[in-house]
Amino acid sequence: MVTPRCTVGVDFGGTNIRVGLVTDQGRVIRRVVLRTRDHATPAAFVQGVRRAIDHLASHGGRRPNRIRGVRVGAPGLIDGRHGTVHELVNVPGGWRGVPLRRLLRQGLGRCCEVDNDANVVALGEWRLGAGRGTRDSLYLTLGTGVGGGIVSNGQLVRGALGTAAELGHTLIDPRGPRCGCGRRGCLEAFVSTASVLRSARLALRHGDRILARIMTQSGGPLTPALVARAAAAGSRFSLEIWRQVGYHLGLGLASLIHTLNPERIILGGGMAGAFRLFRGGMREAIRARAFKAPAGAAQIVRAQLGDRAGIVGAAMLVWEGSG
Amino acid sequence: MVTPRCTVGVDFGGTNIRVGLVTDQGRVIRRVVLRTRDHATPAAFVQGVRRAIDHLASHGGRRPNRIRGVRVGAPGLIDGRHGTVHELVNVPGGWRGVPLRRLLRQGLGRCCEVDNDANVVALGEWRLGAGRGTRDSLYLTLGTGVGGGIVSNGQLVRGALGTAAELGHTLIDPRGPRCGCGRRGCLEAFVSTASVLRSARLALRHGDRILARIMTQSGGPLTPALVARAAAAGSRFSLEIWRQVGYHLGLGLASLIHTLNPERIILGGGMAGAFRLFRGGMREAIRARAFKAPAGAAQIVRAQLGDRAGIVGAAMLVWEGSG
Repeated sequence: MVTPRCTVGVDFGGTNIRVGLVTDQGRVIRRVVLRTRDHATPAAFVQGVRRAIDHLASHGGRRPNRIRGVRVGAPGLIDGRHGTVHELVNVPGGWRGVPLRRLLRQGLGRCCEVDNDANVVALGEWRLGAGRGTRDSLYLTLGTGVGGGIVSNGQLVRGALGTAAELGHTLIDPRGPRCGCGRRGCLEAFVSTASVLRSARLALRHGDRILARIMTQSGGPLTPALVARAAAAGSRFSLEIWRQVGYHLGLGLASLIHTLNPERIILGGGMAGAFRLFRGGMREAIRARAFKAPAGAAQIVRAQLGDRAGIVGAAMLVWEGSG
Repeated sequence: MVTPRCTVGVDFGGTNIRVGLVTDQGRVIRRVVLRTRDHATPAAFVQGVRRAIDHLASHGGRRPNRIRGVRVGAPGLIDGRHGTVHELVNVPGGWRGVPLRRLLRQGLGRCCEVDNDANVVALGEWRLGAGRGTRDSLYLTLGTGVGGGIVSNGQLVRGALGTAAELGHTLIDPRGPRCGCGRRGCLEAFVSTASVLRSARLALRHGDRILARIMTQSGGPLTPALVARAAAAGSRFSLEIWRQVGYHLGLGLASLIHTLNPERIILGGGMAGAFRLFRGGMREAIRARAFKAPAGAAQIVRAQLGDRAGIVGAAMLVWEGSG
């Protein structure tokens, strides 16, 4: 049997490094999960990826020459054109100025590419997920932070240094709450996990009984998922929290609709699970702030690839002139 | 002598229609100016352009077959991919749903293309003006309104309907002043001609003697140019008006830097004449709101093509697959 040629997609997260064999159609044939903290230096990362590839190849009975190349999506400030990590903060110690593509090519003896993780997921969703069939789509990940990726004319928008699509820092209100970046009123300051939890703690202090009951039942810490459960159970406080999240997200999306006129806006990340709860507020803000024609043209949908998006998207990464 | 092949660039403005013969190097060999109000219907516009081309060809001793095609930049909501004017408001009566490319092709018997005027100028500045040598540039026109055009990866970003780069409606402050579009706190509400004049009238009421003297000397109505002259002559009120214009422009640019990471930001339009007066406030806001690396990568410069930008940019307009 001739096995199909595959690309290795690597999703370099803050907790796990996922390494998978991906077909050209985006099917993940097999994958290995490494712990990030055991592979937190560039040398250890390259070695971990090499072992993972050996493992994937041997267990699949796959000849190594059927594996085409290695593509990595990593969090942080990355210049994909040159494969350099300017700054990566989600690993212990952090990385600065690491020529990761060169190190990978040297360590693996294969064609390697590196790009920002949100760009990579945007690419995967556009090629194989919720963005299929469009030329212009926008991906936002809603979680601890708010990241994004832009596809325009069927190409990733990377910008001069590769830092484009830092959509979480779109200005919403200069007098708004403090963002993780230190500034006031960024989109992320209104719609991240931290902002939901801040509002939820306020709701608890004001006597939100439904949320309090659900928290007690869960026995764990407060999470956006519990706030979503409380809203679904009729907590007015929690419903209002999600309406506010949606409204501020909508204000940010309206500016992005004016700038980019996307055909599809794809929402991923943990907070996107509450899509039904924040959809109303989001639409209200977009109606209020964006022009009717481009607002109507932008379908807003949930991401489809789930937690394989990082691997699959990375595998789709192709650089013009790369080799 | 063999004359070089030329393209006809048409700059369809609210007051004048400028029709020019443009070489591939962007030189305007000859041009004709028509009054918009005499050519305000689609049929009159097409006829006016036809006569202008005949005139340009005959006076240049130019064989009509050396004229390659006709490209039009027009204000309003235009789907360049299909050459349709969705909405054009700057002509008496306004246009809605006009298939302008088809009408031009029928009336002129030549290959014609149509796009939004700010896109066209962005393209011209990128190819031949202040954006030369970059892959990612951003053009903003600062005048009665604030429009823009985006070049990413060496291509215009048009979006799904062709309405991308409505940069004047980037959100700055939801509690800000009312914009021409009816919403509060758009970039345009802070940095357009109207906002400068509103502040200047306030300054006059509060006894700005320098501005009052300059107005009296000029004998004409209050204009941003007079407010710039007053600032240059030391009026503290007027200096503060420009600082505020710059600061709010900088807030908008910071969001655009996060989204697009441009290599060059090009400022054109009448208000860009006060560049030196608003540059300080603009830089202050960008330093305060944008990440250091992409902010440092974005050179902010004045447009170079002046009032030929519309004709030259239009002539550069080429659509993939058009013929």
